[in-house]
Amino acid sequence: MKFKKALTISISEDSLDRKYWGKLDKLVERKLCLPKDSPQIRKELVDVDCILTGFQIPVGREEIDAAPNLKYISVLATAYGKIDTDYAKKKGIIVTNVPGYSTESVAEFVFGVILEKIRDLSRAKEQAGKGNYSEAGFKATEIKDKIFGVIGLGRIGSRIAEIAKTFGADVRYWSRHRKEDLEKKGIKYQDADSLISQADIISLNLAETPQTKHFLNRKRINSIKKGSLAVSTVTNEITDLTALEDRLKKEDITIIRDHPDELSPEEAKRLSKYKNCIFYPSIGYISDEARIAKQEIFISNMESFLNGKPKNIAT
Amino acid sequence: MKFKKALTISISEDSLDRKYWGKLDKLVERKLCLPKDSPQIRKELVDVDCILTGFQIPVGREEIDAAPNLKYISVLATAYGKIDTDYAKKKGIIVTNVPGYSTESVAEFVFGVILEKIRDLSRAKEQAGKGNYSEAGFKATEIKDKIFGVIGLGRIGSRIAEIAKTFGADVRYWSRHRKEDLEKKGIKYQDADSLISQADIISLNLAETPQTKHFLNRKRINSIKKGSLAVSTVTNEITDLTALEDRLKKEDITIIRDHPDELSPEEAKRLSKYKNCIFYPSIGYISDEARIAKQEIFISNMESFLNGKPKNIAT
Repeated sequence: MKFKKALTISISEDSLDRKYWGKLDKLVERKLCLPKDSPQIRKELVDVDCILTGFQIPVGREEIDAAPNLKYISVLATAYGKIDTDYAKKKGIIVTNVPGYSTESVAEFVFGVILEKIRDLSRAKEQAGKGNYSEAGFKATEIKDKIFGVIGLGRIGSRIAEIAKTFGADVRYWSRHRKEDLEKKGIKYQDADSLISQADIISLNLAETPQTKHFLNRKRINSIKKGSLAVSTVTNEITDLTALEDRLKKEDITIIRDHPDELSPEEAKRLSKYKNCIFYPSIGYISDEARIAKQEIFISNMESFLNGKPKNIAT
Repeated sequence: MKFKKALTISISEDSLDRKYWGKLDKLVERKLCLPKDSPQIRKELVDVDCILTGFQIPVGREEIDAAPNLKYISVLATAYGKIDTDYAKKKGIIVTNVPGYSTESVAEFVFGVILEKIRDLSRAKEQAGKGNYSEAGFKATEIKDKIFGVIGLGRIGSRIAEIAKTFGADVRYWSRHRKEDLEKKGIKYQDADSLISQADIISLNLAETPQTKHFLNRKRINSIKKGSLAVSTVTNEITDLTALEDRLKKEDITIIRDHPDELSPEEAKRLSKYKNCIFYPSIGYISDEARIAKQEIFISNMESFLNGKPKNIAT
């Protein structure tokens, strides 16, 4: 079985390695690649049975209605983003995502940026690189024995909690659902409000949903303990950025954030003024291993659909 | 019980917090503080019963013979360094050290510098700090599934092995003695030569002894796998630095080292030429927690000696 006509929307040439383009081509009779703003999309939808899309590409009711033969939408991302999965489901169209490919990559990144901050590694490396080997003036704290709060104990949050536990932290979590397997490992459940107010280190790992918008609201931001460090590797929508700015002004907490590229230029400018707001490009999900896993799952999703056993389906 | 006359040699004012100087003063009737090159030392030794020294201070046969009342030498460091512990023992003098105070600090530092390197964190942070949020050009690998070789499974090595295991690495170790408790956790024993040649990441954690001098010899350095990353947080004597330089020239391995301050200026200059030799000041052992633990143990050693139950004794 092959797809008769697959349309890729904004999957750039370098989103897939040559090897995986090759695998993809074996699963489709015809393939057409278009960017998301191409006016040609609407016309081509009329006879596609498969849409392959990148991150945050709108495939809504209109697009779905314009594709009467559509059976399958495959997203090359973890989040369904702007795909109307409910409407697709109603029309009997299977939508699949690529979950978990960057779990380890993000979890390792979180510890990297925490340690960079609490050990002052960039400054130390730069100073030694210039031939100044003095340790004078370097101060540090340890992860061990700190109250380490993980907010959102999904795949990534769970791994962060396990690693923090091995570092010897007092690891506590809040999540919509209790996770008994991790509680057995000594990772304690605590309500979100009190955890945020007590933690020395906070890792935000909530998926973006209508319910999690501004989860880190003004009240919670103001309750963060003086001297604490928070790491946000999730989308900006989770945080009330105006309230965050007001707290950053007090210079008594530090926040490390990626996804600055998804801020408005004005928001980025406002937050980047503060030394205690440390931005990283969105490199948390980037690793050689994650890149390969992502492509493997993406192709495997297509194969599984064609074999009548679809997996990683939007529910 | 108190010491009648304690001589501190090169323990600077800021080596101990005010609180611990206070505790120390309660344990001695008289205290004299001199730097290691003071000509006054020899004269004062004549009636001291206690010597308190910093790191790498020579207390040899001559000094010991000059102090007929000496009962106790306390080192404010883990290594006995230039103290003639054998001769002291022969004369019935107890020598104590401060072990393990920086175990967690060094273990956390090791993961910090590994992650800084494999995630390119300094560059990412600097770039984002300048307002460029693009992730283009960032590549990374994960610790997970890498062969992680720990050479020397003492306190620090053991903690590094445990943490690497939780990161999902294939952790193997070589040490003088087998460690069954860690082997039960899946940390595998492997002979040093083959481990060094197979590991993707190597952490050197050997104590400096006559046997470990140039443990990382030319043969072993040349056997390190292309693309591997080695981290040395131990003294420079463990490594054949000339052989290391020859390997660094090939640009096919990376080594991260602290203790550059203990290299000769000429050695430092030679090695720092290579981009794949990353120096840090000796900040691995520095943390607020380690600083407190060190002082606590140091004072507690003195108290235990005075109470007739000396601990942390040189053997």
